[in-house]
Amino acid sequence: MTPFEGAVALLSWAAVAVVAASGALSASRKQLDPVGFILIACVTAFGGGTARDLMLGVPVFWLTAPGMVLLASGIALLVFFTAHLVERRFNALLWADAVGLGIFAVLGAEAAQRWGAPPWVAILMGTITATFGGVLRDIICAELPLILRREIYATAAAFGALVFVVLTEADMPRNLALPIGAFAGFALRGAAILRGWSMPTYRARPGRDYPDQR
Amino acid sequence: MTPFEGAVALLSWAAVAVVAASGALSASRKQLDPVGFILIACVTAFGGGTARDLMLGVPVFWLTAPGMVLLASGIALLVFFTAHLVERRFNALLWADAVGLGIFAVLGAEAAQRWGAPPWVAILMGTITATFGGVLRDIICAELPLILRREIYATAAAFGALVFVVLTEADMPRNLALPIGAFAGFALRGAAILRGWSMPTYRARPGRDYPDQR
Amino acid sequence: MTPFEGAVALLSWAAVAVVAASGALSASRKQLDPVGFILIACVTAFGGGTARDLMLGVPVFWLTAPGMVLLASGIALLVFFTAHLVERRFNALLWADAVGLGIFAVLGAEAAQRWGAPPWVAILMGTITATFGGVLRDIICAELPLILRREIYATAAAFGALVFVVLTEADMPRNLALPIGAFAGFALRGAAILRGWSMPTYRARPGRDYPDQR
Repeated sequence: MTPFEGAVALLSWAAVAVVAASGALSASRKQLDPVGFILIACVTAFGGGTARDLMLGVPVFWLTAPGMVLLASGIALLVFFTAHLVERRFNALLWADAVGLGIFAVLGAEAAQRWGAPPWVAILMGTITATFGGVLRDIICAELPLILRREIYATAAAFGALVFVVLTEADMPRNLALPIGAFAGFALRGAAILRGWSMPTYRARPGRDYPDQR
Repeated sequence: MTPFEGAVALLSWAAVAVVAASGALSASRKQLDPVGFILIACVTAFGGGTARDLMLGVPVFWLTAPGMVLLASGIALLVFFTAHLVERRFNALLWADAVGLGIFAVLGAEAAQRWGAPPWVAILMGTITATFGGVLRDIICAELPLILRREIYATAAAFGALVFVVLTEADMPRNLALPIGAFAGFALRGAAILRGWSMPTYRARPGRDYPDQR
Repeated sequence: MTPFEGAVALLSWAAVAVVAASGALSASRKQLDPVGFILIACVTAFGGGTARDLMLGVPVFWLTAPGMVLLASGIALLVFFTAHLVERRFNALLWADAVGLGIFAVLGAEAAQRWGAPPWVAILMGTITATFGGVLRDIICAELPLILRREIYATAAAFGALVFVVLTEADMPRNLALPIGAFAGFALRGAAILRGWSMPTYRARPGRDYPDQR
């Protein structure tokens, strides 16, 4: 294993752990049983990377690193028994989701780049990898997807992937660009959580059209 | 075709038939037209196995057994013309879903095992295979996913897969372990339907936190 | 590139453009930011074809034609800045969706046929290809899926695929059958939009059972 492969593996395991926690926290909000916790945790943690690997035609990452299934399941059970100790569970969910968002964005962009995709496709793949697991979690749990909320979300994933792609195109070593891009995405999302930052959004003109018009 | 392949094929066809019926019953609750019945029936019957086959990187099962598409479509039309004769359609849906849950769980675990996955990954794959079609059905039909209801659901799928995996690890012939595991999953789910059995679920402490807190 | 490959490529690009617009219009109804517009536009435009390509085991079409990602993104931004000029955005969404429905239905059926699938599987694949992107769009945007509305929808996709399959089975040149099938699907869906056409749908007998009964 090269140092770069080591960095990718480390980030993957870390992202799986926190994103599994976000899935389990979502399961706690729906009062599911332990198997429900494990299933939602695994779907959230593996959903984005699975979509990425299927589209790129490479082996699905968690099938070739089965310890990850044990990790995600263990975290789900840990959350099952300890979530009531967390004062503000939705907040914990948001932050776990934010860490995973940053890491999965650069991992997705990196995988697409290695596959041979041009920069803009790598950025899209990073954004899909980062957001798809959370979208699955929210849809299966019948929650309003985080992606529809006002604060910056998909933009943070795209930003992290963009930073990574720009740095690698500028010949920065990839095992340096990887954590920088992940932190950039996480930092932007974190600022959005803390300060309610949002991008300029589309707004209907009052009296002209209405967002809910049919 | 070996006896074991025969058993797998038989169970697959049976599961496709009942799960297609559950999808068509869901379509009847939404008052769809015949093509809507066929589409929802096929998505429900083929969704879980398609996800499994894509993740394992093997050919999608219904593309290589196209008679299954005819079977699922025929069942959808049969339900279209006869569902009004069924007194309690939601109940029929639950039972058809339960039969499919048990069968698809062992088929998913078996496919993962054959692929070379370790036991816990096989159990997860069985659970995903068994629940994914129903989740798709409920999401597309804008129903609350069965997986979020109180009674044992994903746990029954995991239990059936677990029984199958334990029996085969104990060197029981696979064409014996297959129906036993499927029946175990179905029996647990059936008991949950009949008696409202549920696992201990996560409960927020009153006055401390609330399941819906944001 | 043969004339037929040219026709397929032309139709693909046209469908991606209009379906991306339908996704962006859906994003405008949810008041998302520009990256949200791009993500929903891409998911809608690429969702159905991606599912088709994964199931058929061929390379994902937009990864091998990355200009499509730029096209869909450009259209998403165009809609972001101009959607407020559109008097009736939901209507524009319906028509863009209808054009894409017709084209993707024949493209899906054609791909399945080329893969070697029998006619009825090709029709199902066309219907899935045509409807899956829109279903993803509606689910992620938390809208009632178009597929659940009363007017003919999935039936139009199946009809377009059917016309294409019948014509090619009757040895009509495929680059002629392709636009005819696409137009047939679009025309039926368009008539449904204009005149509210619907197929006979399943109806519960009054006083006997109820669509929402549990």
